Amino acid sequence: MEPVKLFQYNTLGALMAGLYGGSFTIGELLEHGDLGIGTLDSIDGELIVLDGKAYQAKGAGDVPEVVEVAADAKVPYAAVVPHQAEVIFRQRFEMTDKELEERIESYYDGENLFRSIKIHGDFANMHVRMIPKSTSETKFADVATHQPEYLRENITGTIVGFWTPEIFHGVSVAGYHLHFISDDHSFGGHVMDFVIKEGIVEVGAIDQLDQRFPVQDRQYLFAKFNVNEVRQDITKAE
Amino acid sequence: MEPVKLFQYNTLGALMAGLYGGSFTIGELLEHGDLGIGTLDSIDGELIVLDGKAYQAKGAGDVPEVVEVAADAKVPYAAVVPHQAEVIFRQRFEMTDKELEERIESYYDGENLFRSIKIHGDFANMHVRMIPKSTSETKFADVATHQPEYLRENITGTIVGFWTPEIFHGVSVAGYHLHFISDDHSFGGHVMDFVIKEGIVEVGAIDQLDQRFPVQDRQYLFAKFNVNEVRQDITKAE
Repeated sequence: MEPVKLFQYNTLGALMAGLYGGSFTIGELLEHGDLGIGTLDSIDGELIVLDGKAYQAKGAGDVPEVVEVAADAKVPYAAVVPHQAEVIFRQRFEMTDKELEERIESYYDGENLFRSIKIHGDFANMHVRMIPKSTSETKFADVATHQPEYLRENITGTIVGFWTPEIFHGVSVAGYHLHFISDDHSFGGHVMDFVIKEGIVEVGAIDQLDQRFPVQDRQYLFAKFNVNEVRQDITKAE
Repeated sequence: MEPVKLFQYNTLGALMAGLYGGSFTIGELLEHGDLGIGTLDSIDGELIVLDGKAYQAKGAGDVPEVVEVAADAKVPYAAVVPHQAEVIFRQRFEMTDKELEERIESYYDGENLFRSIKIHGDFANMHVRMIPKSTSETKFADVATHQPEYLRENITGTIVGFWTPEIFHGVSVAGYHLHFISDDHSFGGHVMDFVIKEGIVEVGAIDQLDQRFPVQDRQYLFAKFNVNEVRQDITKAE
């Protein structure tokens, strides 16, 4: 069996440190996986990669805007995987996000491997937010305090994302990092909380991490990080 | 130009947590790089990979023992790279390790990429230690407090190892992780401190991290980590 590689471009830590400039194209990204998350150039909203297509969810007044992203658009940070379900289960009754996450974890073989998550279902409610387009002058933790949030009731769609072992906190965010997109592509974003009515949950195995860096981006190369602050910011913001 | 991949098998954090059992062969490891570091099954000494060959330095009474490692020997943790010097400089006058490290860092393009280090030289003194063979019952931080140490004066040999960006502390050790082997293979180990008389210093670029996990090792899969403790242990022990 081919090992499954999580492809991560840049670190969440670098993003938190204010490196918002896109430096890797969506086209290249999609060569490495069909499911994933990230953000766009200038942290302009949430990136959702589902079934090999990339979508952007942006806050836009009363309603969010979800659009497919062009292959030449660039990301400052993203993670994708060729998702392969290892465990599939049907969730037949209503659960909160916390309850469902606990159920999902009960199927893990320990907590020391990355995993991909794909949940298609009917949701009693879905609460998301979108990081608003910003410049490097504004710290991520500050941007994160005033993100547009949206709540939708009775919506059908897919949650995609990852579970990260704690030792990688900083490189990524420990625990769950999940984004949502509705079936009709009218709603989506970074998942804050939800109640699922019923659905199909897929937990994917990840064997390896293929970690890339913006090796030709001078801003990245010479950036100064306060790693403890960055780790705390991730905990707060994600 | 082919990107240079740092191949890391397992994390230093998992090793610190007591997962000492070897699960990846030296033969496989050497397919991924010609320079590197690590330890052997049951943390039996220090692994030194130099010019495509693997050596083990063990504490053995009055003198250390350095032997070449068989291809079927197994490692619980190791990191190797196909080393490609990006900066080469001649160190023409005596310096302590701290002074030389500062000089090396002055050639870095920032501190946010991994780098490989290779220093061949004449050393006024070289102070090393070797982790002694242990079982999982003894914590790494405890093992680390009673490691055999050796000091040799006027010795010629090679330092190999890596520089790790701080955000990866836990996955690896932030800053330098260096091992030494003498030209005559009579002396080696984990570098504690040294004084170089003169030598050639090579700093290698690393573009990507290829992070592997012991995905079929039940002990790894179900191990419980206290990540903050592990990070502190690494700081203390390495």
